[in-house]
Amino acid sequence: MPSDRLRHLLTLDGLGADRIHALLDAAEALRGAALGGQRLRGVLAGRTVCNLFFENSTRTRSSFQLAAQRLGADVLNFDVSASSVSKGESAQDTLRTLEAMGIAAFVVRHGEDGAVAALAAAARPRTVLVNAGDGRSDHPTQGLLDLLTIRQRKGADFGRLAVLIVGDLRHSRVARSALHGLRQLGCTDLRLCAPPGLLPEPGTLGTCRAGHDLDAMLDGVDVVMALRLQRERMVEGSVPSPAAYFAEYGLDARRLARAKPDAIVMHPGPMNRGVEIADAVADGPQSVVLDQVANGVAVRMAVLAHLLGS
Amino acid sequence: MPSDRLRHLLTLDGLGADRIHALLDAAEALRGAALGGQRLRGVLAGRTVCNLFFENSTRTRSSFQLAAQRLGADVLNFDVSASSVSKGESAQDTLRTLEAMGIAAFVVRHGEDGAVAALAAAARPRTVLVNAGDGRSDHPTQGLLDLLTIRQRKGADFGRLAVLIVGDLRHSRVARSALHGLRQLGCTDLRLCAPPGLLPEPGTLGTCRAGHDLDAMLDGVDVVMALRLQRERMVEGSVPSPAAYFAEYGLDARRLARAKPDAIVMHPGPMNRGVEIADAVADGPQSVVLDQVANGVAVRMAVLAHLLGS
Amino acid sequence: MPSDRLRHLLTLDGLGADRIHALLDAAEALRGAALGGQRLRGVLAGRTVCNLFFENSTRTRSSFQLAAQRLGADVLNFDVSASSVSKGESAQDTLRTLEAMGIAAFVVRHGEDGAVAALAAAARPRTVLVNAGDGRSDHPTQGLLDLLTIRQRKGADFGRLAVLIVGDLRHSRVARSALHGLRQLGCTDLRLCAPPGLLPEPGTLGTCRAGHDLDAMLDGVDVVMALRLQRERMVEGSVPSPAAYFAEYGLDARRLARAKPDAIVMHPGPMNRGVEIADAVADGPQSVVLDQVANGVAVRMAVLAHLLGS
Repeated sequence: MPSDRLRHLLTLDGLGADRIHALLDAAEALRGAALGGQRLRGVLAGRTVCNLFFENSTRTRSSFQLAAQRLGADVLNFDVSASSVSKGESAQDTLRTLEAMGIAAFVVRHGEDGAVAALAAAARPRTVLVNAGDGRSDHPTQGLLDLLTIRQRKGADFGRLAVLIVGDLRHSRVARSALHGLRQLGCTDLRLCAPPGLLPEPGTLGTCRAGHDLDAMLDGVDVVMALRLQRERMVEGSVPSPAAYFAEYGLDARRLARAKPDAIVMHPGPMNRGVEIADAVADGPQSVVLDQVANGVAVRMAVLAHLLGS
Repeated sequence: MPSDRLRHLLTLDGLGADRIHALLDAAEALRGAALGGQRLRGVLAGRTVCNLFFENSTRTRSSFQLAAQRLGADVLNFDVSASSVSKGESAQDTLRTLEAMGIAAFVVRHGEDGAVAALAAAARPRTVLVNAGDGRSDHPTQGLLDLLTIRQRKGADFGRLAVLIVGDLRHSRVARSALHGLRQLGCTDLRLCAPPGLLPEPGTLGTCRAGHDLDAMLDGVDVVMALRLQRERMVEGSVPSPAAYFAEYGLDARRLARAKPDAIVMHPGPMNRGVEIADAVADGPQSVVLDQVANGVAVRMAVLAHLLGS
Repeated sequence: MPSDRLRHLLTLDGLGADRIHALLDAAEALRGAALGGQRLRGVLAGRTVCNLFFENSTRTRSSFQLAAQRLGADVLNFDVSASSVSKGESAQDTLRTLEAMGIAAFVVRHGEDGAVAALAAAARPRTVLVNAGDGRSDHPTQGLLDLLTIRQRKGADFGRLAVLIVGDLRHSRVARSALHGLRQLGCTDLRLCAPPGLLPEPGTLGTCRAGHDLDAMLDGVDVVMALRLQRERMVEGSVPSPAAYFAEYGLDARRLARAKPDAIVMHPGPMNRGVEIADAVADGPQSVVLDQVANGVAVRMAVLAHLLGS
């Protein structure tokens, strides 16, 4: 890993292939240990990691909590949406208050774009932040776990891979972080498929082949990543109905046959079965969805150890 | 304990007297240690126990959390009702996700009958589940703590005991688990008293003396267990009013005098004072309600140690 | 510290200057250690501290959780407002249940005056309670952290200090606890400033100079403490609007110039910026708001160690 140690992890954008591979190597090394039951209590013993969530996400919070505990840290879950401090206190004042309590490591989720970077800019010199998802911008540990999962299955030569992401690309920080990472690791055949209203605004996701015809775009891909369809898209009318979405953009076995025979299927979870993915694909031999989850804990351990470790 | 170690604890039904007594012996051994302040950190050191609650229960969750912590485990409270994963994700996908995060032990509560057994059937080979209450079916650790409390006060010869359960028997997993256990330990004088609409459907609770006349059924019993009246029973009209319920089915000192002089009074908590039980009885010398609570932690330690211990 | 060790900490009223200074000394000694990253795991190793909150407060709960963890205790957060036990169970039954689970230390917050003292009266002989705020009566650890902050900046001779508290004094347990402590440490120049409807009822806060003219009352003070304006005061009409409140009772730089040049500015948090305090003051060189937060953890460690330590 480059000697200039990261202070925060806010985005994968501009991180560089060397740093990314080094983090993936560290995660790979931790994965066996952590998931095999061994604990690495000494790494963060006596440190407190605060999950500072301005937006609810039990799943991501739990993954970070497990990562921190397995490194020996204490965990403080600070759920701002349930807190009295949400009544009028600024995010910055909340951060400063928790810093004053002696906490130096924060895992932050926020509903607004750039909110985590703004907190990082206001933080004390020794405070460390990990972006656990902000608005539609970034979710860097999700990006890293996706990259690790691909590298495990397809090797480190990302330049040879064709990757398709399908779903609500306009609002997806998962897609954005994956694309940041994939490009830096050399991937050039990037394809995006979304309903008309949910393609990214032009220029926001860089140069990709974008379109609405899932069948055509699946041809010969090595990796297909289906995104979760948020309910609010249906409410606001961007998507007519779950059934109609599935008919046009759902990943089923017939469609998957257009990809390479050894293509892998990814999904950030939680899955809407029968909406963006069919049961047979979600549970089929090409699905790596649970590998992604396992890699998520390892990646978060690697990131926390890198940012906080001595 | 039989050499065929249990994998899950889903029900007391069919567990057998030997196994039940062995678990009670283990709980008895742990009780002094745990409640006396000593911790047994080594037993589950480095293991993570996940409280996976699809239905809210702060009290039961806390009892399991304390049991796990006192054995040295890390605890992850995963409250599905508050989680974004509740939006459309199946319970099975939630379980698989948490398994993929490296968790092998789950304490599961669910509102639907059979839901925990269904999860156990879908779990990975090394995953261990404890049923913390499902629908109106089972609540085996509650059953064990009830049995332990009775055995402590009345000895192990359950065949000599007359036991009365009074309350909403139709919807009670507490009663069902107690009856499973009591029958296997040899108890034959089992009496059930409930308002007309709340007696169990015929055949569902086995052969018992069932009726509506609490005074008559109390005659000479050794143990009387009052069940908690759920508010929804009043809303739906199965019970006219708290006062009317208390008049007919509330356990007060006058009525308790019909039981044996040394009869014990049990309640799973939380108590509705003045509804199913009078203050004088709840706080009186025959009440063992707080013993039940203490035994609950010990029983859960014994179960976790049995299922997870090396 | 006097040899008669405290059993509970329910109020600062009547605690006495010697005891208070001894607790502040202990907190001072712990502050460097705790916030510097060192942990004192041995002090409460194997003990469980239960945060029993009948009223939500993520911030205070977190401060106590960190204090307990840094002393090595396990923490059980028992949020009664989210719990099924809130359905009809008395606070006393909840306490007894948790005592029966082997918990001997409780940090209790309750919305009603005297509720924590009532629980203390009903507790088992070896149970220890810390009042984390009850009604408008007491919040003793807040009082101690305020005293510690003043002592750090102004020295231990409280008799020389003029202290002004401004805000909703009628409903403030923060003010009440601060006044209890300040009087016992010898402070005599105590000034209270509030809108007409929010001055304390006569006689309830002892002898103070009370009034509505903030400018006049600021003259020459050493310490000014702004209280948080609760939203319900605006709803009920005690205060016309945030802007009108700020115009009359907001602490801004112009007003602060009337105090001594080295006067310190305190606020219990979370701050309503632009309501009770201006940004320039909250973030200015005279603000000790974050010191208060840091001292909060140290004071709570000192209190827990005193009440529970061997």
